[in-house]
Amino acid sequence: MIKYLELRNFPVKELRPLASARSAGKGISFRGEEIVVQEAVPEAFAGVDIALFSAGGSISEKLAPEAVSRGAVVIDNTNAFRMNPDVPLVVPEVNREAIYEHKGIIANPNCSTIQMVVALKPLYDHYGIERIIVSTYQSVSGAGWQATEELREQSRAVLNDEEVNANILPVGKLSKHYQMAFNVIPQIDVAQENGFTLEEMKMVRETKKIFNDESIGVTATCVRVPVMRGHSESVYVELKSDYELSEVRELLKRAPGVIVQDAIEEQVYPMPIDAEDRTEVFVGRIRRDLTHPRAVNLWVVSDNLLKGAATNAIQIAEALVSEEK
Amino acid sequence: MIKYLELRNFPVKELRPLASARSAGKGISFRGEEIVVQEAVPEAFAGVDIALFSAGGSISEKLAPEAVSRGAVVIDNTNAFRMNPDVPLVVPEVNREAIYEHKGIIANPNCSTIQMVVALKPLYDHYGIERIIVSTYQSVSGAGWQATEELREQSRAVLNDEEVNANILPVGKLSKHYQMAFNVIPQIDVAQENGFTLEEMKMVRETKKIFNDESIGVTATCVRVPVMRGHSESVYVELKSDYELSEVRELLKRAPGVIVQDAIEEQVYPMPIDAEDRTEVFVGRIRRDLTHPRAVNLWVVSDNLLKGAATNAIQIAEALVSEEK
Repeated sequence: MIKYLELRNFPVKELRPLASARSAGKGISFRGEEIVVQEAVPEAFAGVDIALFSAGGSISEKLAPEAVSRGAVVIDNTNAFRMNPDVPLVVPEVNREAIYEHKGIIANPNCSTIQMVVALKPLYDHYGIERIIVSTYQSVSGAGWQATEELREQSRAVLNDEEVNANILPVGKLSKHYQMAFNVIPQIDVAQENGFTLEEMKMVRETKKIFNDESIGVTATCVRVPVMRGHSESVYVELKSDYELSEVRELLKRAPGVIVQDAIEEQVYPMPIDAEDRTEVFVGRIRRDLTHPRAVNLWVVSDNLLKGAATNAIQIAEALVSEEK
Repeated sequence: MIKYLELRNFPVKELRPLASARSAGKGISFRGEEIVVQEAVPEAFAGVDIALFSAGGSISEKLAPEAVSRGAVVIDNTNAFRMNPDVPLVVPEVNREAIYEHKGIIANPNCSTIQMVVALKPLYDHYGIERIIVSTYQSVSGAGWQATEELREQSRAVLNDEEVNANILPVGKLSKHYQMAFNVIPQIDVAQENGFTLEEMKMVRETKKIFNDESIGVTATCVRVPVMRGHSESVYVELKSDYELSEVRELLKRAPGVIVQDAIEEQVYPMPIDAEDRTEVFVGRIRRDLTHPRAVNLWVVSDNLLKGAATNAIQIAEALVSEEK
């Protein structure tokens, strides 16, 4: 996020990096200057206009209200407030207007939801959406840099015929950990009572909230694949009215934040290695469904660390600032 | 296949390994004996009862009729005859009876189709199937051992920060090749006119043919993931009648060739590393769809080299032999 504040020339008067007591005192670099990290105590938020939170749900729950009570607007990148009815859940390309209904906290959606709703927004506006069936191919960086490091270590071990250690994936805090290298794990986040995982239910609930439409049906299967960075999604979308494929392609091409890479006959389609370090959502494999006359299939890829997290948070901040002007 | 003929104690009187002129003269081991490979010329099929073909579609097209004219029954593992109306396409757990309608050639279906239909068979019989929406996570061994070797080489190169070479995937004979290591490629086999790939259309057409039911709707998205061995599939199934989830689980548990691994709350689900060297189809993540009252979601994993190829071919041969007895 700090890198993107800098890259996008965000109007920062003062950057105040906050972290745990353990990291306080360390330096970070911003616009060529060295800034000392302070401890994230309630008082540290005095005088802050916009507070960007990304240190886990429990930290947000504890400190976001403290920041708000000191006058800051919090943009929270965790799951803590996303489904709170008083907290707007925002993807600027989709529901920018919701930002201005905030009561101090604005939530950044889950990475896998963000890229999907950006791709679906033009179809929702033009045809309406009946339901969505999505299967994801999610990279390990969504589970933190330690998970990325573990994938590297495990891959090296497999290639060298050495013992493979698994301590993080699929869910750090659960008891069982599985090899991710050269494997696929159909679990992201903890199990829910209905047999879905929390990640899957995030996609279900957040999509409805962002479109402000409880009538959209969503079913998700969230799967971790041995990719460092970039989430991919196979999305089946049942529209409310008939469509022409050429029109769908045209709508997507004109949609903000979307890049269409769609020419299977020339082997052109989005892939996570190509999406790395890009802030857009890439859409390809656009094709008429074979089982339903109003359904279309899409392949959606984006950098989960950028549009799926940092970029979206900064875009919310930009919208906030432009409104306040 | 030779290994499985041995392991399953198939009644082989004489094994006659045939290959290209280049491989003729080499030795292979069978039941502790060394057998010399002969050149696959038409005359080599004289006296053969069952001919197992697995050397690519063009070889099958040329030599299968030669084998048949010499009295052999051909079990073909390529795409050459699968959709030929005179050729049964067989997965013994699903349509064993079709074997006996052969006119000399029996086709082994595509790996991604086989594991799916084995899992769907009990649901088809009990409820009927309206339509299927499947997204696959296919391992590189489906593209041959060279692709597996390339994934190893590329992975090593990425980990060592060296240049990555891509010469095989996604489709050897096409002009563009992409990095598979730590990436996901949404193309398996060549593009078709409707925007789907041939692999996707194989799943569509073969499923209908195996169930002998053109009314089943199938849409597939076939994706290659950096896994050595074992295909995974996220399958949405719309049934023709209402169902109880407990009954679906029970039907799957009793289905031949199926092992249910389904307890997300205990982190139990199928994964490709666990399916390696197993001949069964593993099913988990069984859950009620959130968007359709008659739909169920499944996660289906199997070893694409075994049940997806060799094991299924030998099972067909076993059925043939048991009939002939």
